Amino acid sequence: MINIDRLRARMTEMAKIGATPNGGVTRLALSEEDKRARKLFVKWMEEVGLDTRVDDFGNIYGKLHGLERGLPVVMAGSHLDTVPKGGNFDGVLGVLGALEAVESLIEQGVKPLRSIELVSFTNEEGARFTPQMLGSGAVTGQFTKDYVYTREDNKGFLFKDELEAIDFKGEESNRPREVSAFIELHIEQGPMLEIEQKSVGIVEGIAGFSWMQVEVAGQSDHSGSTPMSMRNDSLVKAAAIIQKISLWAENRDEQTVATVGNITTSPGIINAVPGETKFTIDFRHPNREELYKGMEEIKQLIKTEVEESSLSSTVKEIRTHQPVHFSNEICTLMEGTCRSLSHPYKHLISGAGHDAMYMQHITNAGMLFVPSINGKSHCEEENTEWEDIECGIVTLFHVLNKLANQPLGVASNNLNNNIKQ
Amino acid sequence: MINIDRLRARMTEMAKIGATPNGGVTRLALSEEDKRARKLFVKWMEEVGLDTRVDDFGNIYGKLHGLERGLPVVMAGSHLDTVPKGGNFDGVLGVLGALEAVESLIEQGVKPLRSIELVSFTNEEGARFTPQMLGSGAVTGQFTKDYVYTREDNKGFLFKDELEAIDFKGEESNRPREVSAFIELHIEQGPMLEIEQKSVGIVEGIAGFSWMQVEVAGQSDHSGSTPMSMRNDSLVKAAAIIQKISLWAENRDEQTVATVGNITTSPGIINAVPGETKFTIDFRHPNREELYKGMEEIKQLIKTEVEESSLSSTVKEIRTHQPVHFSNEICTLMEGTCRSLSHPYKHLISGAGHDAMYMQHITNAGMLFVPSINGKSHCEEENTEWEDIECGIVTLFHVLNKLANQPLGVASNNLNNNIKQ
Repeated sequence: MINIDRLRARMTEMAKIGATPNGGVTRLALSEEDKRARKLFVKWMEEVGLDTRVDDFGNIYGKLHGLERGLPVVMAGSHLDTVPKGGNFDGVLGVLGALEAVESLIEQGVKPLRSIELVSFTNEEGARFTPQMLGSGAVTGQFTKDYVYTREDNKGFLFKDELEAIDFKGEESNRPREVSAFIELHIEQGPMLEIEQKSVGIVEGIAGFSWMQVEVAGQSDHSGSTPMSMRNDSLVKAAAIIQKISLWAENRDEQTVATVGNITTSPGIINAVPGETKFTIDFRHPNREELYKGMEEIKQLIKTEVEESSLSSTVKEIRTHQPVHFSNEICTLMEGTCRSLSHPYKHLISGAGHDAMYMQHITNAGMLFVPSINGKSHCEEENTEWEDIECGIVTLFHVLNKLANQPLGVASNNLNNNIKQ
Repeated sequence: MINIDRLRARMTEMAKIGATPNGGVTRLALSEEDKRARKLFVKWMEEVGLDTRVDDFGNIYGKLHGLERGLPVVMAGSHLDTVPKGGNFDGVLGVLGALEAVESLIEQGVKPLRSIELVSFTNEEGARFTPQMLGSGAVTGQFTKDYVYTREDNKGFLFKDELEAIDFKGEESNRPREVSAFIELHIEQGPMLEIEQKSVGIVEGIAGFSWMQVEVAGQSDHSGSTPMSMRNDSLVKAAAIIQKISLWAENRDEQTVATVGNITTSPGIINAVPGETKFTIDFRHPNREELYKGMEEIKQLIKTEVEESSLSSTVKEIRTHQPVHFSNEICTLMEGTCRSLSHPYKHLISGAGHDAMYMQHITNAGMLFVPSINGKSHCEEENTEWEDIECGIVTLFHVLNKLANQPLGVASNNLNNNIKQ
C-alpha cells in the first residue's frame, strides 16, 4: 500500500536540517533551516511529479492533477517549522506523510477525479512569529496580509523581510481556491492514544481556549523588617489561586484543562515581599458553552479568593478561540476506513491548535492523530512508533483516495463558518 | 540642642541629586549622582571644619579631632547610595544626621576627649554591585580588596573602574584604625515603631538570614492535550510549598519571617505545563539556634511536600549570615539617654542588614532607628516624621557626646568576633 521505509528515509533526511545534539530539531519559521527544509520538500514533490507553487505567505503547494480539473481540490498537509529544541514528528510527519500517501496513489496507478494538493503552511508553531498558524490563518481570512507581513520576531526581524530573504515569497494568485476537503495527519501531543493502545486518533474537533493574564496586587515590603502578620504578599495569594485553579480544573469534568504556565513577581528580588504577581492562565474546553461558563468560574474563583484579603486582582482576557468541530462526514469516512483496515482507533478532541482549525473555516476539515510516546511533544524526546505511523499513513492514503473520487464532495456540516475572528 | 531646620535643608538639597519625578531618588553606588552626593557631603564636612579623607574603597570620613588624639575614635554614619527609585531617608539620614550631631557639638563648644569620625560607606544597598555593604564589609575584613574591586554591575562595569571614574579611590592608609564605638542612625524600614507610637528604636541586633534557591522539577507537557490527572506540574507544587512556608512562618514565632520574592517557570510559556519552577526563600531569625533549626524545618517541609508526588526538588543555600548582637553597653547608654530626654523608645531587632552589622566585627556597634511611615522603604513613598527624626538626632547627639568622653571606651561584649565570613 504505502512505502514506510521511503517515508522513514525522508523523515530522517529532513531531521538533519536543524538537528540538535540531543536528537531533536530547531527549525524556526523563515530561518535558514526552514529554507533548506522547504527546498528539499519542493524537490521531493517535483521528483514525484507534482505541480508545485508558493503563495504570498510562503505556504507551499504541490498538486497531483485530477481527471476533472474544474472540481474543488482535496488538500492534505501540515507544517515544516518547529519550536526551538523540538522533535522530529510535529508537523513534518503530516507533510511528508501526505507526500508518501500521494506518491503511493500514483504508484498504484490511481487517477483521482479531483486534484489532490499537498500543503506546508508557514509559521504554524508561532515560536518565531506570534501568533501561531499565521500561514493557514492568512489564507483562510483570519489575518490580513498587512498584519502577517508586519509580525516581528524577538530580534525585530519582520515576517515579510524574512520571507523574501529565504526566497519563498510567492504570488497571491497561488493561494488555495476551492477546496473540497482538508486532511491533516499529526502527532497527538498528549497521552490518550498510547494509554488506550490505539494507533489512530479520529479528531472530532479542537478545544476552544481562553488565555488570560492575572495580576494580583498587594504591598511590597522589606522581607526582613515586616512581620508575617502585617504583609500583603501578592505571591502567597497568587499561590493560593494557582492551587485552586488546578483543583477546580481537576474536579470540573474530564475535558477541562487549566494551566498556569508563566509567573513573575515585582520587584522580584530575594529580599522583598512581592508587591505584584502576574501569571497567565490557559483554559481549554471542547464545548463552547462550557468554555464561556468556565471562564466566568475562573474569574469568580479569583475574585472570591482576593475578596477575603486586603489585596486586589485584575483578570485580562488575552485571546479566546471558540471550539472547532470538524466535518462529521470526514470523521465517519475515517472511522469506516480504520474499521475496514482493523486499525485500533479512538475518537478524540485535540487540546492543541492546528492548521486544520483554520482550514475548517473554508472547507470540510478533518485530522488524524498518531500516538506520542509518553505524550511528549515540543521537545527532543518527541517520538512515535513506526507501526503507528504506518497505520496513520495507510488510513490517510485511503481517506484521500475516497475524498478525491467523490464526485459531489463532502457535505458541509461546518457550524463554524460564522466564527471569524 | 540640634538644628533640625539645617538638617532638613541639607536633606532637601541632597534629595535633588538623583531625584525621581515621584519624589524619590535614584543614586546608585559609584554613579554620577553618587559622585555629586559625595562631593556635597565632603564640602559640608569641610565647612564644619572636619578633617576629611577617603579610603581605597571610596568610604568617606570626616574627623572632629578630640583632645586625646591617641585614643580609639568614636564613629558614626551610614551610606549615601540608594536603590533605584528609592527614598530620601534610607542611609542619607544616618550620614547627614551624624553631621548635624557633630556640628551641634562643635557649636556648643564641646571638646570631646576622643576624636569623632563621620563615615559614609560605599555601596551599602547592593543595588548596583552585589553583595550589599561592600564598603563596610571591606574595611572590617569580610571581603578582600580583589573581591571588592572585581565586583561587576549588570552592564559589566567593574567596581574599581567606576570608583576611579568618579575620582573617589583614596588610600588604603585612610581606612579606620582603632574604633572605640560605631553608631548608625537609620530608618526602621518596618512598621513596629509606628504601630507602637515610639520615636526611637534601640536596636539590639540584626536578625540572621538564610537565602535559599528551591527548584521543583516535574514534567513539561502541552497545556491543551495533557489531562489534569496526568500532569506533574512543577508550579502547582511550588504554589503549595509557597503557601506552606508562609503558614509555617506565621505560626512559628513572632520573630520568624520567610519570604518568597522571586519565582520563574520553565519553559515559562502560556501554553505549556511548567516542567521546572525555581523560587527563592529569604528566611530570618534573630536567634542563631532558631535560624539553623528553621532552615532544617523549611527543607523538611519541602521534602515532605514533594515526597507525596512524582516530582522532585532541590534546595540550595545561597548565603547564610548569622545573627549579630550589638553592644549591650551602647544599648544601655541609648536607653538611659532616651529616658532622660523622655523620648518614647522601644528595643527591637533589625530584620534588615546594615553597615553596623559588619562594624560590630571590629568595634562595639549600636543602631538607632526612627519610624518609617507605613513601614515603607526602598520606594519613593519612604518617609519619616520630622518630630521623630529630631528625637533620633538628639539621642545620637548625646550618645556620641558620652561615648567620645569616656576615657576607657565601651567594654566589649562582642560575641561575634569569631564569626568572620
